[in-house]
Amino acid sequence: MSKTSIDLNCDMGEGFGPWIMGKDSELLRYISSASIACGFHAGDASVMRRTVEQALRAGVSIGAHPSYPDLQGFGRREMHLTSNEVFDITLYQVAALKGICESLGARLSHVKPHGALYNVAARDAETARAIIEAVKSLDSTMAVYGLSGGVLTDLAKKSGLKAIEEAFVDRSYGSDGSLIPRRESGALVSDLGIATSQALRLAKDNSVISKSGETVKIAVDSLCIHGDGPNAVEIAKSVRQRLDEAGITVRPVTV
Amino acid sequence: MSKTSIDLNCDMGEGFGPWIMGKDSELLRYISSASIACGFHAGDASVMRRTVEQALRAGVSIGAHPSYPDLQGFGRREMHLTSNEVFDITLYQVAALKGICESLGARLSHVKPHGALYNVAARDAETARAIIEAVKSLDSTMAVYGLSGGVLTDLAKKSGLKAIEEAFVDRSYGSDGSLIPRRESGALVSDLGIATSQALRLAKDNSVISKSGETVKIAVDSLCIHGDGPNAVEIAKSVRQRLDEAGITVRPVTV
Amino acid sequence: MSKTSIDLNCDMGEGFGPWIMGKDSELLRYISSASIACGFHAGDASVMRRTVEQALRAGVSIGAHPSYPDLQGFGRREMHLTSNEVFDITLYQVAALKGICESLGARLSHVKPHGALYNVAARDAETARAIIEAVKSLDSTMAVYGLSGGVLTDLAKKSGLKAIEEAFVDRSYGSDGSLIPRRESGALVSDLGIATSQALRLAKDNSVISKSGETVKIAVDSLCIHGDGPNAVEIAKSVRQRLDEAGITVRPVTV
Amino acid sequence: MSKTSIDLNCDMGEGFGPWIMGKDSELLRYISSASIACGFHAGDASVMRRTVEQALRAGVSIGAHPSYPDLQGFGRREMHLTSNEVFDITLYQVAALKGICESLGARLSHVKPHGALYNVAARDAETARAIIEAVKSLDSTMAVYGLSGGVLTDLAKKSGLKAIEEAFVDRSYGSDGSLIPRRESGALVSDLGIATSQALRLAKDNSVISKSGETVKIAVDSLCIHGDGPNAVEIAKSVRQRLDEAGITVRPVTV
Repeated sequence: MSKTSIDLNCDMGEGFGPWIMGKDSELLRYISSASIACGFHAGDASVMRRTVEQALRAGVSIGAHPSYPDLQGFGRREMHLTSNEVFDITLYQVAALKGICESLGARLSHVKPHGALYNVAARDAETARAIIEAVKSLDSTMAVYGLSGGVLTDLAKKSGLKAIEEAFVDRSYGSDGSLIPRRESGALVSDLGIATSQALRLAKDNSVISKSGETVKIAVDSLCIHGDGPNAVEIAKSVRQRLDEAGITVRPVTV
Repeated sequence: MSKTSIDLNCDMGEGFGPWIMGKDSELLRYISSASIACGFHAGDASVMRRTVEQALRAGVSIGAHPSYPDLQGFGRREMHLTSNEVFDITLYQVAALKGICESLGARLSHVKPHGALYNVAARDAETARAIIEAVKSLDSTMAVYGLSGGVLTDLAKKSGLKAIEEAFVDRSYGSDGSLIPRRESGALVSDLGIATSQALRLAKDNSVISKSGETVKIAVDSLCIHGDGPNAVEIAKSVRQRLDEAGITVRPVTV
Repeated sequence: MSKTSIDLNCDMGEGFGPWIMGKDSELLRYISSASIACGFHAGDASVMRRTVEQALRAGVSIGAHPSYPDLQGFGRREMHLTSNEVFDITLYQVAALKGICESLGARLSHVKPHGALYNVAARDAETARAIIEAVKSLDSTMAVYGLSGGVLTDLAKKSGLKAIEEAFVDRSYGSDGSLIPRRESGALVSDLGIATSQALRLAKDNSVISKSGETVKIAVDSLCIHGDGPNAVEIAKSVRQRLDEAGITVRPVTV
Repeated sequence: MSKTSIDLNCDMGEGFGPWIMGKDSELLRYISSASIACGFHAGDASVMRRTVEQALRAGVSIGAHPSYPDLQGFGRREMHLTSNEVFDITLYQVAALKGICESLGARLSHVKPHGALYNVAARDAETARAIIEAVKSLDSTMAVYGLSGGVLTDLAKKSGLKAIEEAFVDRSYGSDGSLIPRRESGALVSDLGIATSQALRLAKDNSVISKSGETVKIAVDSLCIHGDGPNAVEIAKSVRQRLDEAGITVRPVTV
């Protein structure tokens, strides 16, 4: 059965100090959920506070976007941490953003690991469990976003957390439903038409056309647009328009 | 009128990664309140979680010990931050520790700025106000520790927060009640007898014998022992014993 | 007597990790000297190596741009360091860039402190001396850039170092020859015409028209354009053209 | 044929800011080479300068000890860096220490990667090559220390660099000559007698008694003692005495 609503999410607050990344204020017009960096791959304390304020004004659902501690590598480099270390850094980062939200009258609704931590959590049960335990210890009503069909969302569900299966508007998929790795050509979708069609198909039919042309089924509760892509705002605007036209309500799953 | 109880506090969790500072587990036997580093001058996410666990087991009241962002300088170097920046770094650090406490079933009871931030907040109203606003925005039932007679405790009281006037067992005082600066000789008290007598006098009479021999009145709700001093454990043990013998109950003010 | 040549310098390599700042490759077409960030306020190891390669290809003279250790504050926040600490951080940063230059076949020709360290060194003799000692200990043929008329260039000369008096194309001056502070209105010059005229006047006549309209004499060996200004490339291009037209050769003083 | 001399090396300068690690000044009495941390896993600019001064006074040969950028993890956590990133971080760190040495009149004689970078370079050719290229680009007369029989020393020799095969006095070996991993019981040798015997056997016969009792041949140019072990000073003193008594001269290979 075709969906009538979908979540549209974007990573936010990924500047640091003097450096800006992404057009957060424009993107916030089109999305329903924002995952905000927590200081370990991006987002210092001031950027975090300002981004929560922006998201609150925009009426968007707010999540934490914790990462390995790697500012230079933007959290995209795998690090071999123990389960305890993953638990501790997740707890610290999510706690910091949760407090900032509460101090501003906002609610922290979800946690979505960033970059390499996201990828490792999608395949490694120990890492996934450490993240899940950190989330549960803070607030078991928060949802966990993860790669659709990955280990994190699977274990989150089994542990009683709300899990959000996520698919990407601006990434290509293999015929097995996996993401084409970033280092391979054609991994990123920057064509507005393709991205928009992919968004609609994912939202309506839970499916995607793979790089090799097959239709592949993918469970999807939320569509992700990467905020740091060159035409992220155009994609977000266009995807939102198409979903609106198709009568699919864009709204957070976590409400 | 002589006091019948006093708070005894110590800074804690000031290791980082592989590095250890202070004998936290031993100190916890003698004190009633611990101010735990929050990652900016010391205390990574794992150290913080472990220290909260230790404090919880020891039944000690827990506070946050936020700092300027200066790991190398251990937060002891003044930095010229704007009020907004002080607000933001205080909010971030206290929020992180508050979340860690709550996830472990502990309560965060107070906030005590560290090092240079402590000193600046004791004399600069803008900095003091930024800290106070951050505390209030998170939880207005938390207390604020500050230098006895300083700007921070004065403004905290006026703003409706519980303020804890703090005096030092292991530091010398001038005849005006100010601390002898660390760089001057005789600033630190390491003699067990002197430290213990100073503690008792502060607790009982709200007074101290200055470096030049005068008796100086100092309001004091809490006695601080520096956990990184060479004989911190001996001082803590001895002070606690003396207070017990004198019938002065050691307990947190914040309960 | 009017000058026949002048140095035109710009700060460079002020990105970090995924974040970009300034259009280095375009600016390099117009300038004669580049001061490259060394990792403490901007510029990680990879950014540094790439920026040295770019400067080398552009045939531009290379300098080090050391800073207080403050990535979040971009080195613009004053920090109270001891002389030894200033010596040590200058030595470390300049040594790192010097080695990178040498490994790529380039030469490190000058040192210019960044941001708050630049400002403090222009007025505080202890800080200035620490920087000078670090430079001398590494290579006493390197030049030191500093605020025209400031303490750093004065002491550098007295110590036998080549000192470069620097003036700003894109900043307003007071009637005493001091810079209008950044926080005051009208501190930054973004008007192309004014910036270009100011550059020519500084280069030809060692003078500037102050904010209040007086002509003020300023010694100037090098003109600085801030690479992170919104129209930095336009200003650089226009200033270079005007200097070329006026028959003033743009070239490093350090050659 | 039995050796008549051997290098005895120790990691040094692994404090940071207020935190101390290892008894460097005592260890320096017994060793011939020191590998000094460069700021990425330990060792800030001030610690580095002071440690070089100490090593210089002790007449010990000086090397750089570069690491993955991971202060909290003390460089012991593997990070997935590209070859270019490994080249850049090695170049930066070694350049910084090289400049500090030269400014103090010392010579940087070798490079020994630290922790996880050491382990990865011992098995991964790409990482090893990146380190080798960084060393060669700075000074091709510097030696490279690596795990005896590992990829790094093998490729270093092939590339024309002097390679130092290193064995450990305080670690257990498997019957194939590999190190027993730290997480396994019995990995660390803290018994003074065993460590001393192992040192003598390695120095004289290029062999070690494995955990399971076999004699295993291991090429060894340098014996390493971990400076952060609980009885590192005792081991160093005892090993040095035994080598002296056996008529084996302790001296750097790099002289």
